[in-house]
Amino acid sequence: MKNTDFLDQLSTRYATKAMNGEKVAEDKIERILEAARLAPTSSGLQPFEILVITNEEMKQKIRAIAFDQPQITSGSHLLVFAAWDSYTPERINHMFDLTNEVRGMRNEGWENYRQFLLNMYGQQTEEQHFTHTARQTYIAFMAAITQASYEQVDHTPMEGFDPAALDELLGLREKGLRSTLMLPLGYRDVEKDWLVNLVKVRKPLTELVTVID
Amino acid sequence: MKNTDFLDQLSTRYATKAMNGEKVAEDKIERILEAARLAPTSSGLQPFEILVITNEEMKQKIRAIAFDQPQITSGSHLLVFAAWDSYTPERINHMFDLTNEVRGMRNEGWENYRQFLLNMYGQQTEEQHFTHTARQTYIAFMAAITQASYEQVDHTPMEGFDPAALDELLGLREKGLRSTLMLPLGYRDVEKDWLVNLVKVRKPLTELVTVID
Repeated sequence: MKNTDFLDQLSTRYATKAMNGEKVAEDKIERILEAARLAPTSSGLQPFEILVITNEEMKQKIRAIAFDQPQITSGSHLLVFAAWDSYTPERINHMFDLTNEVRGMRNEGWENYRQFLLNMYGQQTEEQHFTHTARQTYIAFMAAITQASYEQVDHTPMEGFDPAALDELLGLREKGLRSTLMLPLGYRDVEKDWLVNLVKVRKPLTELVTVID
Repeated sequence: MKNTDFLDQLSTRYATKAMNGEKVAEDKIERILEAARLAPTSSGLQPFEILVITNEEMKQKIRAIAFDQPQITSGSHLLVFAAWDSYTPERINHMFDLTNEVRGMRNEGWENYRQFLLNMYGQQTEEQHFTHTARQTYIAFMAAITQASYEQVDHTPMEGFDPAALDELLGLREKGLRSTLMLPLGYRDVEKDWLVNLVKVRKPLTELVTVID
């Protein structure tokens, strides 16, 4: 591994605008999901779920509430990232209990931290919770994008859809979830993709970074 | 590169709880920042800036408004991610103009998209803007974490601080910015880090993923 391998991946990946219908192999999908699973999240709570949609009828319905973006149906797999609508004691306790089980120990500091979180989130509104859980999905999203890039699987980071309509279509609210992001996975259609040969544009570091030394 | 290299990195990286003061080399810092710069963001607007803080006095002041977390001062570099407080026409136009300049062309579809965004964000409140810009910083954050991990630079993803106080300390509001995340960079202090030898805990994929086929 060179220190620039990841930078090279970031430079060559792009938001694919047209896909050719070719199916992504299941082992690649599994590793892309695994990357999302391993991503860090606040307090390790992993406050989200991912739906993997291959059903053609459902993809058509989703495309209809997502500016008719063709990658939704011409990609083989559509990932939908959905954040918890709130932090409940059950959800928080589940993760702490799982941690204790996996590590085979109880630890006073860790149990104090559990109480701290239960208390803190108990004083917040559901909107405050969702503001926070939604942000965490963007971390897992970037992990999935990175693995897709390594797998040479094309993908389109996508926020352009009606989240309330998508929640309704997928029955997310009943599960205590709210959609935040979509990621169609597939292979580029070079003939139809207007972006494929355009150079990637990013601001220079001088515009983005300030040093305080 | 093996398909599992990134998954191995995700599995071995961890939120370092104690650092030893050793300085991270500047070329590593530059590549970590470069990863954040290359990360995808909504419409490519890159609505954030990053502050790189090595000044000891400033790190002490920040530690005081961040639950006294020691990595802030025992890491050599502290990255602060700050999102735009709002999408202004100037900020949007700057990115579209830069894109035209770099690509050496004007394109009707792209200009229409510029107008679409100017119109859409023009109808939203500043709080709606910040909800959106803040989320984008989490994508760049994960890119920086990934590069740090490849560089074998230890790091602590950090939301535990008082954002309003940090904005004040760093004069961010005057620049149209609001802090969202911090990332101390340095090297672990194995003796003092209670987390270093504990196994990483993540939910199984079965709890996170639902397939709709």
